[in-house]
Amino acid sequence: MIKELAILELVGDDLLRVEQKMKSMGEGAYGPLAQAFLQLLGSGGKRLRPALALAAYDLAGGPIAGADREKAVFMAAAVETLHTATLVHDDLIDNALVRRGSTTLNAVWDKGATVLAGDYLFARAAGFAAETENTRVVQHFADTLRIICEGELRQHFSSRQWEQPKDSYYVRIFAKTASLFASATRSGAILAGAAQEAEEALSDYGRLLGMAFQIVDDVLDYTGDKSLLGKPVGGDLQQGIVTLPFFYYMQTHPEPAEVLAQLDGSAPATTRDFANGSTAGVDDIVAQIRTSDAIAQALDEAREFAAQAQACLTSFPASQIRQAMHELAEFVVARRV
Amino acid sequence: MIKELAILELVGDDLLRVEQKMKSMGEGAYGPLAQAFLQLLGSGGKRLRPALALAAYDLAGGPIAGADREKAVFMAAAVETLHTATLVHDDLIDNALVRRGSTTLNAVWDKGATVLAGDYLFARAAGFAAETENTRVVQHFADTLRIICEGELRQHFSSRQWEQPKDSYYVRIFAKTASLFASATRSGAILAGAAQEAEEALSDYGRLLGMAFQIVDDVLDYTGDKSLLGKPVGGDLQQGIVTLPFFYYMQTHPEPAEVLAQLDGSAPATTRDFANGSTAGVDDIVAQIRTSDAIAQALDEAREFAAQAQACLTSFPASQIRQAMHELAEFVVARRV
Repeated sequence: MIKELAILELVGDDLLRVEQKMKSMGEGAYGPLAQAFLQLLGSGGKRLRPALALAAYDLAGGPIAGADREKAVFMAAAVETLHTATLVHDDLIDNALVRRGSTTLNAVWDKGATVLAGDYLFARAAGFAAETENTRVVQHFADTLRIICEGELRQHFSSRQWEQPKDSYYVRIFAKTASLFASATRSGAILAGAAQEAEEALSDYGRLLGMAFQIVDDVLDYTGDKSLLGKPVGGDLQQGIVTLPFFYYMQTHPEPAEVLAQLDGSAPATTRDFANGSTAGVDDIVAQIRTSDAIAQALDEAREFAAQAQACLTSFPASQIRQAMHELAEFVVARRV
Repeated sequence: MIKELAILELVGDDLLRVEQKMKSMGEGAYGPLAQAFLQLLGSGGKRLRPALALAAYDLAGGPIAGADREKAVFMAAAVETLHTATLVHDDLIDNALVRRGSTTLNAVWDKGATVLAGDYLFARAAGFAAETENTRVVQHFADTLRIICEGELRQHFSSRQWEQPKDSYYVRIFAKTASLFASATRSGAILAGAAQEAEEALSDYGRLLGMAFQIVDDVLDYTGDKSLLGKPVGGDLQQGIVTLPFFYYMQTHPEPAEVLAQLDGSAPATTRDFANGSTAGVDDIVAQIRTSDAIAQALDEAREFAAQAQACLTSFPASQIRQAMHELAEFVVARRV
């Protein structure tokens, strides 16, 4: 299904070059690090973020070859490398041992080595961004990294705060996901030499698509197939992370106080072996949310964000890439993995 | 003694502006993060790295006011913020609870929050570097971050490898310390619009000074006063980190095999409470090294690096700042803390 995504076809050649640049990080690097990269890159995801940078560059009318396009490829590599760096640190923080069905780095390396491997990837991401030689792109990149880290910290400190306001959820998912999607599309637009209005439209497209993407991720955490996701189901709530399905469930649940008592009675995730252990109280609630209306309500919101993302494309002339970006928004909410 | 350092006097006004920029990171930041910054900045060190960036800018003839100088101040803030970020992660990795006599962040925060706080500081450092709007400066900055992380990884994986070649020591201290010193002085030179030759001379000055600085740091780890250093004496060897005094000691010690057996019999640092525990075998060797010729031999090498650093300054016309940089090299090897 993913292979058939038109956007991945259209920017496929450049995505291969992104992959090459990322693989080249291993060359000449310290042995154990080079090996770790191969594993990290091999278990790579859908490469949506770099594809978005490249697609935005194309839609904004960037030259199809030459130095500018090379810069867009560098930026796409920066975005994906930054994403990978945050995953390495996230898995360490969450004590996650499996991601996308593969063993995580922290399952194999100790705490110190994993922290440093993530830092190294941040450094390489910054290096790729610097290769664009574009001051605004670099500034947006640094700013996005700041927003992501601050968002992760907010999420970390708000863990097991079951009664936080729903608004805080949108702040968090913008920071952790939508900001990087927006940075990818904005950077593509800047490197293509887009006018201010087109740059903003593409940044908005990325942001809204990112919001939809993260809501669906959060829904799949409840409804997904463990073997397809390559990670445990209900993991968010087990870690004390409150996402959109939970907010909707609480709004309509007859006895919220009862649910909270059940959650508060469960052990915090940090004291358990997260991969193997589970907490009865949380598992019950996950099962209830899974079959409740909360799932449909959350997906409706994701669809709304996706539709808003599509609306950002209408000011651009019709083209294959515009159509592919339109379809991507549909894919993001329809996906099962 | 430190307050009297001429270089800190000469660039003092700009150092205050660096401090302001770093403090401004807390404004508008997420509450717990802002508080952590105040503590981190309050326990600040000598601010040698930002002073070097500013001094190099001055020696290279950068304008004394205006946009270029402002960029040098931003770069100085980038260098010090990057340094602070690496310390936050180092302390986490080493389980260090005290630094410069103050409680470390990881002594107060959990693993996850500490990782993210360090990441956040990397982001802010990159943001400061981006404010220079200078492509080469940003590229050098990203490259330095990469070198530092790779060096830390090498050190981490070479822990308790007692028989590593002495050359690996120089590779490690260049990566962990001298590379950032060199990046500071090179960036100052670039932002001052220095000619290629002057830029290289200033980069070399920073690098050689950094080598001297780290050797002295490693000597002080054996000979220093615990209350002045604000950390335990002999900590490096207890953590399995082999530094220059150890290499010299082993070269002249009559029974190296005996020393190694003693070290191998001691528990690795990661299994102990590093702040309180100690390992008898290691403590004995630390005491022996402390009173051996190895200390004087290591300090001779530091003096040699410092003299080479001073030689890099001779191509610049005599000035107050040149004299201050010359004296700094003397201070670096004479310091007791």
